Amino acid sequence: MSPTLADIRAAALRIANPTERTPVLTSRSLDALTGASIFCKCENFQKGGAYKFRGALNAVRQLTDEQARCGVVTHSSGNHATCLALAARERGIPAYIVVPRNAPQIKQRAIAAFGGKLTLCEPNLAARTAEAERIQRVTGATFIHPYDNPSVIAGQATLALEMFEQVPQLEVLVTPVSGGGLLSGLCLAAHGLAPNTEVWGAEPALADDAYRSLQEGKLLVNHDPSTIADGLRASLSERTFGIIRQHVRGIVTVTEEQIIAAMRLVWERMKLVVEPSGVVALAAVLAAPEKFRGRRVGVIFTGGNVDLERLPWQ
Amino acid sequence: MSPTLADIRAAALRIANPTERTPVLTSRSLDALTGASIFCKCENFQKGGAYKFRGALNAVRQLTDEQARCGVVTHSSGNHATCLALAARERGIPAYIVVPRNAPQIKQRAIAAFGGKLTLCEPNLAARTAEAERIQRVTGATFIHPYDNPSVIAGQATLALEMFEQVPQLEVLVTPVSGGGLLSGLCLAAHGLAPNTEVWGAEPALADDAYRSLQEGKLLVNHDPSTIADGLRASLSERTFGIIRQHVRGIVTVTEEQIIAAMRLVWERMKLVVEPSGVVALAAVLAAPEKFRGRRVGVIFTGGNVDLERLPWQ
Repeated sequence: MSPTLADIRAAALRIANPTERTPVLTSRSLDALTGASIFCKCENFQKGGAYKFRGALNAVRQLTDEQARCGVVTHSSGNHATCLALAARERGIPAYIVVPRNAPQIKQRAIAAFGGKLTLCEPNLAARTAEAERIQRVTGATFIHPYDNPSVIAGQATLALEMFEQVPQLEVLVTPVSGGGLLSGLCLAAHGLAPNTEVWGAEPALADDAYRSLQEGKLLVNHDPSTIADGLRASLSERTFGIIRQHVRGIVTVTEEQIIAAMRLVWERMKLVVEPSGVVALAAVLAAPEKFRGRRVGVIFTGGNVDLERLPWQ
Repeated sequence: MSPTLADIRAAALRIANPTERTPVLTSRSLDALTGASIFCKCENFQKGGAYKFRGALNAVRQLTDEQARCGVVTHSSGNHATCLALAARERGIPAYIVVPRNAPQIKQRAIAAFGGKLTLCEPNLAARTAEAERIQRVTGATFIHPYDNPSVIAGQATLALEMFEQVPQLEVLVTPVSGGGLLSGLCLAAHGLAPNTEVWGAEPALADDAYRSLQEGKLLVNHDPSTIADGLRASLSERTFGIIRQHVRGIVTVTEEQIIAAMRLVWERMKLVVEPSGVVALAAVLAAPEKFRGRRVGVIFTGGNVDLERLPWQ
């Protein structure tokens, strides 16, 4: 089931506090480089450092009191995990996070710092799923999928409502795509509110399941994607693919070099800390400027959680 | 001669376009750590990457057409140099920049990228001064001092006019101090507009001439300061010292470790690229929280020009 525009509007009210209404920043350098008017939605400033807080908080707040008492569970070591922990703490309920044993220490510490209860497991999907199911059985916690969940999709989509208010006459919206929660949410919001606004996905060529799925007309998955954009390694679900194939204008893929160059550009020129996954939409606009030239283009900077000890250009 | 409040207001009109009205950002993390309400003025987003553009543009725009035709000259390898080059380019006039031979390549490239005409000289003050004077004689260019100049001081002070509009009931303003152009400008603006607002300076302990000068009641200078805050190595002039001693509430000094910790905090929690010199005001609030607790404190993030290949915590 897909969320409706009414669901998205309800989500916006439900999460308005304490979600940040993040600013939209512009840059003459970016405009000169792309030949477009670029509007950057700074979800790196979002609570938890990523737009994922929107969907996580919407899902947590939609739980009944009885459900909430038992907490929430997910398997992830990325921004969904930290943001779910933060959303759960905000409601005063436990968040059980299943993390592969080999996940970076820095990510494990971030989840714990936001109050998440960590459980380590073997680094494969079967082990993660089994461990999350075990925790559900024992605790009664509700499983919150990082993207294959209508509440999560509606929460992420609130970003588009803000963007349409902040930037009049937006002609294009470009966002990174991984599991498709954000992209499908933006598709639904744009379709409902601004049907003339094109929505594009941007994807690392090393994790191009959305691109290939649209080409083939059927759901394909990534196998061990190794892109530096560590937040974009997941594959679409049937639900997100269904929404995206119906509404998306297209997917642009980018190389690892293009991701790193875009990241460096944002840090140097815009003075913003954005993670590799977070700059992929901008990388796509720089890689395929002919699609966007002369237009008013919204670009989502999805997050800013990056290991400052290890920058990709070093 | 000190600029008056009328001079500062005139400067604000003179430079309004293309100067950025930079945003003021807040952070629950900072508020929790300091026990104060911290309002960060993001001059790292300013054109040229630093507040220095304000003073440079005000000085350049105050030149007569005849003066302007001959260009401007300064000796600096820092933000004043790049921002003066940018301001000169904006008026379509040459900017001659005298740079010590051993200045980092990255800074030389930045000056050149903004259209500055570089002249290399031996790395000592006598050589820099002599070379700048030679250029003045040959070209007729006007020398624009980085801080000992009323137009520059009035330009930097426009930052305070914005801050008072952006943050109601600001009780304290904290800014890094080097040559004192910004601090003296903020002192004059606050004295004229909001005399109950305390103005504090923040200084690296390794370049603490302002602190010592105030203690001793006479102008003292730094000798070969080695602080990582490379924008804060200059010493006050008689002019800036005179203004500051009259109006400043005090100077807080910080260690190198405190500067690096504050910088990391801003990058990690606020997702902002701020240079070491740019976080010294925040470092001071963190180092002496008892002075600021419970109050509404404006902190100037003065700039964001940093070598991304070499971060201080690596």
